[in-house]
Amino acid sequence: MIDAEAIRSGNRLALSRALTAVENNTPDSKRLQATLFPFTGNAHLVGVTGAPGSGKSTLVNQLAKAFRQSSINEKPPKIAIIAVDPTSPYSGGALLGDRIRMQDLAGDKGIFIRSMASRGALGGLAHSTAAFATLLDSAGFDIILIETVGAGQAEVNIARLAHTVIVVEAPGMGDDIQAIKAGILEIADILVVNKADRPEAENTARALKIMLEMSRGGGMTAASKHLMRSLAEKKVNTNQKDEKTGWETPIRLVTAIEGSGIDTLVDDIRRHKAYLVSSDLWKVKEAYRLEKDLEALIKDKLVDQWQENLDEEKYQALLAEIIQRKRSPIEALDLLL
Amino acid sequence: MIDAEAIRSGNRLALSRALTAVENNTPDSKRLQATLFPFTGNAHLVGVTGAPGSGKSTLVNQLAKAFRQSSINEKPPKIAIIAVDPTSPYSGGALLGDRIRMQDLAGDKGIFIRSMASRGALGGLAHSTAAFATLLDSAGFDIILIETVGAGQAEVNIARLAHTVIVVEAPGMGDDIQAIKAGILEIADILVVNKADRPEAENTARALKIMLEMSRGGGMTAASKHLMRSLAEKKVNTNQKDEKTGWETPIRLVTAIEGSGIDTLVDDIRRHKAYLVSSDLWKVKEAYRLEKDLEALIKDKLVDQWQENLDEEKYQALLAEIIQRKRSPIEALDLLL
Repeated sequence: MIDAEAIRSGNRLALSRALTAVENNTPDSKRLQATLFPFTGNAHLVGVTGAPGSGKSTLVNQLAKAFRQSSINEKPPKIAIIAVDPTSPYSGGALLGDRIRMQDLAGDKGIFIRSMASRGALGGLAHSTAAFATLLDSAGFDIILIETVGAGQAEVNIARLAHTVIVVEAPGMGDDIQAIKAGILEIADILVVNKADRPEAENTARALKIMLEMSRGGGMTAASKHLMRSLAEKKVNTNQKDEKTGWETPIRLVTAIEGSGIDTLVDDIRRHKAYLVSSDLWKVKEAYRLEKDLEALIKDKLVDQWQENLDEEKYQALLAEIIQRKRSPIEALDLLL
Repeated sequence: MIDAEAIRSGNRLALSRALTAVENNTPDSKRLQATLFPFTGNAHLVGVTGAPGSGKSTLVNQLAKAFRQSSINEKPPKIAIIAVDPTSPYSGGALLGDRIRMQDLAGDKGIFIRSMASRGALGGLAHSTAAFATLLDSAGFDIILIETVGAGQAEVNIARLAHTVIVVEAPGMGDDIQAIKAGILEIADILVVNKADRPEAENTARALKIMLEMSRGGGMTAASKHLMRSLAEKKVNTNQKDEKTGWETPIRLVTAIEGSGIDTLVDDIRRHKAYLVSSDLWKVKEAYRLEKDLEALIKDKLVDQWQENLDEEKYQALLAEIIQRKRSPIEALDLLL
């Protein structure tokens, strides 16, 4: 049994063990999540997403350092980094990356880094991220940077659940269609063109600006509009009177590896939080995120329950008929459920 | 009602309408899948996956053209391309890409191209791909090229269900850790280093070779080993006597945009099919794929059934308690199911 109080008071060993418990989906991890959930709701979740090679990891490391250094007159915020890794189900690729990052940020007790392996976890990638956020939030982390590879549906969905979504592009990584294809432009609250020392960086930024303007009517992101609509249907009140007076997505040129442009980005993230809180979108996003988490848990549990009560013989017989092409999966479904 | 016979006899309009019906999950699409399923099992499914910017689309187009031209003395194979697009749920990004590709391959009636939008479809991305494959297979397409962005969990899973998996890398797209992170190396039956005219191409190929050797004991891919194990548990017989005598994943330098290296790749794909058939792995992969399709359908149906019988008032009350942080999602789950 891992001590929930130890996690709350900042014990790193207890926290690490709890996160591993979440990955292994132990009963103890569920108890911890339930116990610690009331102590959450303070952390600012920042999703950072972009294609492989866009330099996300470097950017996230620099952001963590900058946040730690930027508050000279006040207590610096505690920063956690969750790297959501679409590793193969066969081997764990997360560890190597972790070790390299540790070297860079080691020594600062206010920064906590953890890769998340998602195989087999209750509710999949989405719930694991939510559970990680719950534990880190209750442990007093002020900013949780969630890094995902933004080219997959599941990973983009996770980033979208953050309060603030940063989409990272790099110049010269394929033509403009790639960016549209990835479908991640419109979920961006902040757009970063990383590796801005490359000659094509300005062109990439210009192309992104045009695409952004094309894809959006007002200042709000499509994701926010979608959120507002779905919340409006559920009669959740917000102070947001006019969609057009919303947030304007900045496009920033950054060279993460040299740290240039990082301070502006830190300001953007803070401004975006202030905007969310003042417009009540913060509450809206929280509600949306928690509902999505519940949905993911429900789906998983339904499958578990069904498997427990499964007539294995009947299932195998139907499967054999499918393999012999005597019956289609669609027909078998009706006989099974 | 779309005519199933028209699809079988090669009517393109009927086929297109049927694929749209699948995307919209109409009752008619289910009837068609059930009717046409017995006429499938001939097509060679080839998954092509890689990060955005690796040049997958160009490669797939060139492969389609090369397959059409390579059979001088026999009837050229009919080729279908399914582009699985992780487009945002808000707007359809697929169309633009489609139009550009059409221009390139237009005029050849033996090539059929279709992007797949996946939002809201029964069974999600995985089942939509399976349903597309069923329809195209029954329509007489010999080779179905399934193109996915290989950086997301869902997309990599889809590629893995193909008979032959091609993983595309491009030189200079980030350091070697990226390739490990994406976790797609070990599912490759054929590895392509595209854009081989770049100076770093040879180095990338060498690095991939080392990584491949590190990640594999014998000649088989990790995915194949996993498959063999899971099938062995279910007592499916294969001719595969020794894992070490399996397929050796070739690493090919290709410049897709110029067409160089494409013919070798076409040979590799044919050799891999011959290997699968002679080792009975073809049957093994078919069985595995069909079971995964059935599983995806079951999961989706379970959620649908639950939603139909949902006590909406109770659900909303619990959700409100979660949002007020009076109750955790984990606790609410126990009260709901």
